[in-house]
Amino acid sequence: MKLLRVGPVGAERPALLDESGTLRDLSELVPDIDGSLLADETALTRIREAATSGALPALDPAGLRTGAPLARIGKVVCIGLNYHDHARETGAAIPAEPIVFMKAPDTVVGPDDTVLVPRGSVKTDWEVELAVVIGRTARYLDTDEQALAAVAGYTIAHDVSEREFQIERGGQWDKGKNCETFNPLGPWLVTADEVPDPQALGVRLWVNGELKQDGTTAEQIFPVAEVVRYLSHFMTLHPGDIINTGTPAGVAMGHPDPKPYLRAGDVVELEIDGLGRQRQELKDA
Amino acid sequence: MKLLRVGPVGAERPALLDESGTLRDLSELVPDIDGSLLADETALTRIREAATSGALPALDPAGLRTGAPLARIGKVVCIGLNYHDHARETGAAIPAEPIVFMKAPDTVVGPDDTVLVPRGSVKTDWEVELAVVIGRTARYLDTDEQALAAVAGYTIAHDVSEREFQIERGGQWDKGKNCETFNPLGPWLVTADEVPDPQALGVRLWVNGELKQDGTTAEQIFPVAEVVRYLSHFMTLHPGDIINTGTPAGVAMGHPDPKPYLRAGDVVELEIDGLGRQRQELKDA
Repeated sequence: MKLLRVGPVGAERPALLDESGTLRDLSELVPDIDGSLLADETALTRIREAATSGALPALDPAGLRTGAPLARIGKVVCIGLNYHDHARETGAAIPAEPIVFMKAPDTVVGPDDTVLVPRGSVKTDWEVELAVVIGRTARYLDTDEQALAAVAGYTIAHDVSEREFQIERGGQWDKGKNCETFNPLGPWLVTADEVPDPQALGVRLWVNGELKQDGTTAEQIFPVAEVVRYLSHFMTLHPGDIINTGTPAGVAMGHPDPKPYLRAGDVVELEIDGLGRQRQELKDA
Repeated sequence: MKLLRVGPVGAERPALLDESGTLRDLSELVPDIDGSLLADETALTRIREAATSGALPALDPAGLRTGAPLARIGKVVCIGLNYHDHARETGAAIPAEPIVFMKAPDTVVGPDDTVLVPRGSVKTDWEVELAVVIGRTARYLDTDEQALAAVAGYTIAHDVSEREFQIERGGQWDKGKNCETFNPLGPWLVTADEVPDPQALGVRLWVNGELKQDGTTAEQIFPVAEVVRYLSHFMTLHPGDIINTGTPAGVAMGHPDPKPYLRAGDVVELEIDGLGRQRQELKDA
């Protein structure tokens, strides 16, 4: 299923994009799309049955904003340098084990919302990422099978990053990862049954129409199952948590000088096979 | 005022410790203690008036668990190496600007709840910290006055840290900061009007009755006002966010070998002048 949330900021309603491409209202069926829904097999089955029965009311998509496909996100865990080609372009060694950092859930915005260039920023960069949505509590998992069973579905995350804040301002990467609007998410939460192989997805990003990142999750150093299993030994993952699994080559930082960092007026588009497409315009904060 | 939350995990009720030391029930007056309450001057005035009128029902504290004093925490931002003496003991240079890392809100537990030593951990360490509770949105602040006006109050945070995970396992500190139960918080949220000088507070921690940290917030490299102002240029702070402002000298990592890292059965107690006291027993995860 393709689950999404549509409507004004803070007043999104749950919806479903059905197999014919029709937008369907879920608000009579479930209160919202969040961790408790994803952990509730009965409610998910109810949505699935309603979707096939054709009984769900259609929604007119015209003029309707798409929000992030998940409400009440618990935490956003991110994996750094997780693509062979991206590690090469940044000049970093291939990590021996996953690099972990965090974004606050309040950085999450809708897939087509405005992204703000922070005041004083000259190195705002893009990163298209496969995002994993957790549906079951994951704690000290032993196997890849257990790890994949904890995954409710997948979506696209734009892990916007300010490289000066991240790397040149002392300390930890989080400083360049938590600016407001720095994590567009969506458009859809595609349930895991519709993503048979998360390691075979094309991942693309354009800036002002020019293709900048053109990768595949086959290049991931630590695949999704290993990332979830690994993280579960350092933190408990809960339904409604998100994992941004890293970005392929092609970020601005990897370009020769002068590096084409983002500025107000730029338009970024992102796409992952089967997960839809994002489009953001940049403005000054 | 001293605001707190008492009752079983997940079913805490809002309460107040009045000037005579009597525990008072606030659940008839406000639904919970969270960011929206702290941003609501009218509701805070209602509590203040009820507290002085003596009309609030008393609660029997016997056998009553104390939860974290804040529900629905948005994010936990942490400042690293923020005490002159702690920077010295870890052999680190005095930072030129604040070092920032993140804990997930799901690491927060009550002030006297059990702390779990992660599986495979041999370097679980303690850190007593002054925690700032945000009450007003803080975004690109210019002055210390604006910064302090965004502070709703103060409490104690135990920033439990696994040093091997934090430093020796690749990448960023967050990996050793986000294990479950790693952020006891409380007992009270003391409103800012009762903490006239946050830079003049004694900060102490004991392990099994032995005083290990005995510092003062006067030793902070970046004081509270500067931390809030600084952070507001890298992220938006919202009501219900927490900032852990760093720890003084005396952590296990700063001891000569063999370093006295925490093990199951150890008891840690923490205290900050005017903010109360925590006590945790450690168990294996």
